[in-house]
Amino acid sequence: MSVTIAVDAMGGDHGPAVTVPASLQFVARHPDVRIILVGIAGAVEHALAAATPSARERIEVRAASETVDMDEPPADALRRKKDSSMRVAIDLVKSGAADACVSAGNTGALMAIARFVLKTLPGIDRPAIASQLPTRRGTTLMLDLGANVNCTSEQLVQFAAMGSALVAAVDGIERPTVGLLNVGEEDIKGNDLVRETSERLKASGLNFHGNVEGSDIYKGTTDVVVCDGFVGNVALKTSEGLAQMLYEFLRAEFARNALTRVAASVAWPVLRAFKRRIDPRRYNGAMLVGLKGVVVKSHGGADAVAFVNALARAHAEVAHGVLDRIAQRISAHA
Amino acid sequence: MSVTIAVDAMGGDHGPAVTVPASLQFVARHPDVRIILVGIAGAVEHALAAATPSARERIEVRAASETVDMDEPPADALRRKKDSSMRVAIDLVKSGAADACVSAGNTGALMAIARFVLKTLPGIDRPAIASQLPTRRGTTLMLDLGANVNCTSEQLVQFAAMGSALVAAVDGIERPTVGLLNVGEEDIKGNDLVRETSERLKASGLNFHGNVEGSDIYKGTTDVVVCDGFVGNVALKTSEGLAQMLYEFLRAEFARNALTRVAASVAWPVLRAFKRRIDPRRYNGAMLVGLKGVVVKSHGGADAVAFVNALARAHAEVAHGVLDRIAQRISAHA
Repeated sequence: MSVTIAVDAMGGDHGPAVTVPASLQFVARHPDVRIILVGIAGAVEHALAAATPSARERIEVRAASETVDMDEPPADALRRKKDSSMRVAIDLVKSGAADACVSAGNTGALMAIARFVLKTLPGIDRPAIASQLPTRRGTTLMLDLGANVNCTSEQLVQFAAMGSALVAAVDGIERPTVGLLNVGEEDIKGNDLVRETSERLKASGLNFHGNVEGSDIYKGTTDVVVCDGFVGNVALKTSEGLAQMLYEFLRAEFARNALTRVAASVAWPVLRAFKRRIDPRRYNGAMLVGLKGVVVKSHGGADAVAFVNALARAHAEVAHGVLDRIAQRISAHA
Repeated sequence: MSVTIAVDAMGGDHGPAVTVPASLQFVARHPDVRIILVGIAGAVEHALAAATPSARERIEVRAASETVDMDEPPADALRRKKDSSMRVAIDLVKSGAADACVSAGNTGALMAIARFVLKTLPGIDRPAIASQLPTRRGTTLMLDLGANVNCTSEQLVQFAAMGSALVAAVDGIERPTVGLLNVGEEDIKGNDLVRETSERLKASGLNFHGNVEGSDIYKGTTDVVVCDGFVGNVALKTSEGLAQMLYEFLRAEFARNALTRVAASVAWPVLRAFKRRIDPRRYNGAMLVGLKGVVVKSHGGADAVAFVNALARAHAEVAHGVLDRIAQRISAHA
């Protein structure tokens, strides 16, 4: 089976300087993949100049005349930029010319355009943003990470069903455990939304573990962690900030004086292994789930290594038939 | 000025085995402090056996016949256990016999009893739980961390005013900057609650920085970070879980083989300094703010080192006249 991925070549902080080399690397590693680079033709072709002929063979360029700015209001991007690289990339998924689309651009705009063009799957009110996070046991899928800052309990149950279907399909876990993010494990804890959602999840037929706390995310207590987009976004960004601070403190301690710098040189291979293990680039590629199409959002500041992982995420979603699995699960739990 | 602290000696996972030695250490270091240990007399006296006469002089024991269980519903602890160590310790603050109370017990029960016995300050609807967190620049005060899972914008503004007053009093910062935790920096981002709170904060006369994201907490972008208790609790516990995971990964890398273990021994002083720098025990002691009395909550699993820090927090609040400062600020912003 050949997989075609439409890449918003202009998206992200670095545009074609990252998206094009990453695309070339990805097709070189995956003989079954074709990539359509969507963007300002000159800029894309320029970045493609270094491509080997064999990689170039499976890369197509589709011109788009506009780009969506990183801080552009999503409604403006949707209404006024019908020929943006982001829009054209999503249109390619809609038309069936591509199996998936990857963008490092403006998250809100990507969500708005994807929802408008692709529509949601039957039984899904709102799409969610899902991401895989590293845990002490492996990985966990968390959603929503910011698409929906006001959620109903019904939507949270839909997120749980989608997350379960995704993990079942991609990671091959038959009945993934689902945790509901709360301020305590007891049923009586939490706000009204969470209590109501908990009752619904118990009756949903999903493998509901119960409430989980923030600390359970990285413990890997459940395969899926469900929360509203406000809470999820705060948890994710708090994690990013903390990891950065801890890494900086560790560096500072090793840079303190001549003696600690000697220690650093001895410990260097270990520290490098540690850094690699927690490298956020490994987890780059958030999935917009609940749409009639595979859309993956790369971090805006992604480099080529990180963007390749976002492409891999899109590829895996297509290869594992995630869309069908979600649709099946939603109809089963409707 | 002499400061008297009532200690719930039975609270926490370890009870008198931690609270008593910590109290002895604290009075030994602070000649101006007296401590009233409240608890089951036999258990407290037993733990006190090792006290030096000079420390023992400034320790008083007050018997209480009951203890609040860690998982007891707060309403039960409030209604049925009128002679619990927690209740008696708070009563001592109410009567003026103590200037502050410290407990490592059940958070919900502590909040419920403290609210019932002490009442809130004029102009404050609900108390909040505040804690100082380490950042790349120093520390930041975050609230609410779990007392109020459903907040109004008015309450969030009160939290902002209380947090500002606390930081102004204890850290000597004249006009602390206040950040409102949100999913993005732009005004249009967030849910209805946050947008409404943002408008109120702009008009509040506080030094409102604007919206901050989760990553800003550990960057130290603002002196105070305000959020509802659901979000704050998730952010805090997610941080705890992540820090634990990262530390475990670091240990695992250094323990991998003979070579990495040599590296570990060389790097050991540096790793120890790093660990000390991020030691959560340094930040133990959450403040229940908005009450007519100083109440500090220690982590339930605290050891003596951590509990001493909770005592220090209570001591600092009293010494800096935080209650008056909060009351002044609230009336100024009412």
